Amino acid sequence: MKFGGTSVANLERIRAVAEKVRKQVDAGCEVAVVVSAMSGVTNRLVGYCQDLSALHDPREYDSVVATGEQVTSGLLAIALQALGVDARSWLGWQIPLRTDDAHGKARIESIDGTALIASMQAGQVPVIAGFQGVDRDNRITTLGRGGSDTSAVALAAALHADRCDIYTDVDGIYTTDPRIVAKARKLDKITYEEMLELASVGAKVLQTRSVELAMKERVRVQVLSSFTDGPAPSEGHLPGSIVVDEDEIVEKELVAGIAYSRDEAKISVRRVPDRPGIAAAVFGPLAEANVNVDMIVQSTGDDGMTNITFTVGKTDFAQAIKALEESRDVIHYGELATDDDVVKISVVGVGMRSHTGVANTMFRTLSERNINVQVISTSEIKVSVLIAAEYTELAVRALHAAYGLDAA
Amino acid sequence: MKFGGTSVANLERIRAVAEKVRKQVDAGCEVAVVVSAMSGVTNRLVGYCQDLSALHDPREYDSVVATGEQVTSGLLAIALQALGVDARSWLGWQIPLRTDDAHGKARIESIDGTALIASMQAGQVPVIAGFQGVDRDNRITTLGRGGSDTSAVALAAALHADRCDIYTDVDGIYTTDPRIVAKARKLDKITYEEMLELASVGAKVLQTRSVELAMKERVRVQVLSSFTDGPAPSEGHLPGSIVVDEDEIVEKELVAGIAYSRDEAKISVRRVPDRPGIAAAVFGPLAEANVNVDMIVQSTGDDGMTNITFTVGKTDFAQAIKALEESRDVIHYGELATDDDVVKISVVGVGMRSHTGVANTMFRTLSERNINVQVISTSEIKVSVLIAAEYTELAVRALHAAYGLDAA
Repeated sequence: MKFGGTSVANLERIRAVAEKVRKQVDAGCEVAVVVSAMSGVTNRLVGYCQDLSALHDPREYDSVVATGEQVTSGLLAIALQALGVDARSWLGWQIPLRTDDAHGKARIESIDGTALIASMQAGQVPVIAGFQGVDRDNRITTLGRGGSDTSAVALAAALHADRCDIYTDVDGIYTTDPRIVAKARKLDKITYEEMLELASVGAKVLQTRSVELAMKERVRVQVLSSFTDGPAPSEGHLPGSIVVDEDEIVEKELVAGIAYSRDEAKISVRRVPDRPGIAAAVFGPLAEANVNVDMIVQSTGDDGMTNITFTVGKTDFAQAIKALEESRDVIHYGELATDDDVVKISVVGVGMRSHTGVANTMFRTLSERNINVQVISTSEIKVSVLIAAEYTELAVRALHAAYGLDAA
Repeated sequence: MKFGGTSVANLERIRAVAEKVRKQVDAGCEVAVVVSAMSGVTNRLVGYCQDLSALHDPREYDSVVATGEQVTSGLLAIALQALGVDARSWLGWQIPLRTDDAHGKARIESIDGTALIASMQAGQVPVIAGFQGVDRDNRITTLGRGGSDTSAVALAAALHADRCDIYTDVDGIYTTDPRIVAKARKLDKITYEEMLELASVGAKVLQTRSVELAMKERVRVQVLSSFTDGPAPSEGHLPGSIVVDEDEIVEKELVAGIAYSRDEAKISVRRVPDRPGIAAAVFGPLAEANVNVDMIVQSTGDDGMTNITFTVGKTDFAQAIKALEESRDVIHYGELATDDDVVKISVVGVGMRSHTGVANTMFRTLSERNINVQVISTSEIKVSVLIAAEYTELAVRALHAAYGLDAA
């Protein structure tokens, strides 16, 4: 059971979390718990470090910010004991949960589950501080923002857990954003691959790295709300959405969900000589400036000139333009056209692998609403298009209906 | 260099502390720093634990409250680096600083100074989280409130430091409380024994345990202000008060200081049969109730009955009365008389060992002011009397003058 920052925001909620854990224990489950910092705490500690030095030592930063989870783990252990549940807190270095030394964004290298398993077999609930580990030099590391999800999945793998339940402020994964489509449906099951595509295009329920890890380690992850009481826990009817292997889903939907991302900006490099190596000439300076490029399309005219259009993250937009302007004499382009008033809409589903026509339905649906598609990119289980931002809601609603995702 | 909670209360003060450390480093000193939690933080964390459970697990309490010092050590390391001083934070378990498993009030068993000394020899300033250690089970322990002073003294011993400087919100040890006696003088030097007597009777500058440890390990401790800049550091003219071995003080004053403690309450057990073992009958129930008894006087009448009068701490007062009332049938006393409107005044000085008349000067001075002495107790270097609380200021001022302590 993993509880995020809003679930443990104050003592009252920590008591409520303890009740949830006790319910599982009373139902006969062996439970390990992973906790985040009380909401707001990490931001305050990060602010302290930044205030003292913009270029602060990441090892000191890690030692400072890891205290947030340390506090919550101790407090939840106390709250559980107050309910008569045997519990104790565990810090990264006590387990130990070993990571590399990339402080601030460390990767887990190994987890020694021996002590935790012994504790659980003795009837104790381990309450583990998420987000943190320890490196080879015995210094505290952290896994990057949202890293507690990754902690939970990695621990579930190390403890051979039947399931990793991620308690959040939403009650599951939806076919699309319910704030845009009132008829969005909660998915009972979704595959790792679909979840990865949905997570990376804007449905920020689970940290991407945690889903990658769950897929690699085959950990069944359930997303559910810590604020509502679902039905009694049993495999038959799980209250949330479970992320599982494709094999576990018998009735595969053609499309699992519609995602959108406002974090896109478009750049067109126009009238470039259409010669071999021109793509490298354009994207080389961007790579050097550490700018990630997402969707790419190239259109060639009759005059031996070509246009290269692509998208970058909004935070990289200014940096990308600067890099291209500085390379104008190398690339020899006619002009730069830029637009950050765009949105990326994605249709995601493993069913696409065996069914044709998914992309076509998308284009037809958008065309019927007179929505111009600016860039297209596809993967095995996803079709994404870039459109003007003003059409976001219209496009998402139309596609949600077109793929039969609307709730009855 | 040890900095208490008010010295690191916010980022601005942490920066000021970093400047103080840099000054020492620039003067060619090898420095290790010990820090407390930012003021207010420990109280908040203690409050969380108590709120969740009055009988909280002290191991979890320790893990929670130790985060306060962890945050400060990381932040000060960052602040030092920002000034160009090579620095790193150290937690109790990283050193390791080993303690027993008496969580919440653990005692230091050993400090492995190897890593810290290597770090200092490489030109780095260790910034050590005070108040904390680790027990045999690899769980975090804390040393009890004010324990950072003890951490600092123990580390000074382990690192063979020339001196342990305790930075506080006062600029030294005074002959008495300057709020009562305007002419109180700052002492340049004071012996461990005198400091212990002063600390335990109400001059709360240093934690008693830290002074005991300093005496045992012969660590020279300086108390000085973190808010004022004294003269440049040199052995010739230290800015604060230094606590040292008696041998280091050439010109011994007869009396070092006058202390007072309002934390006293008086109990008289009246008309007790004067038979062997009666003291044990009275004090046995108090020991069983964990009540510490301080001053004791017994006065016997002609009728084969005796009165036993003693003092206890104000927090134990109700508990002590209850224990005695429950034992009335065993002790067979006539009545209990109680009074918590009393104060203990103490005259302290190693010079008393070789000079007579100190006690006499005290009694005469009080008598001249018509102050009635209710109970007397003496040690080798201290004379204490219990008087009515309303005379506190009058008595302290009169004694301060009588022993020639008033500043010119």
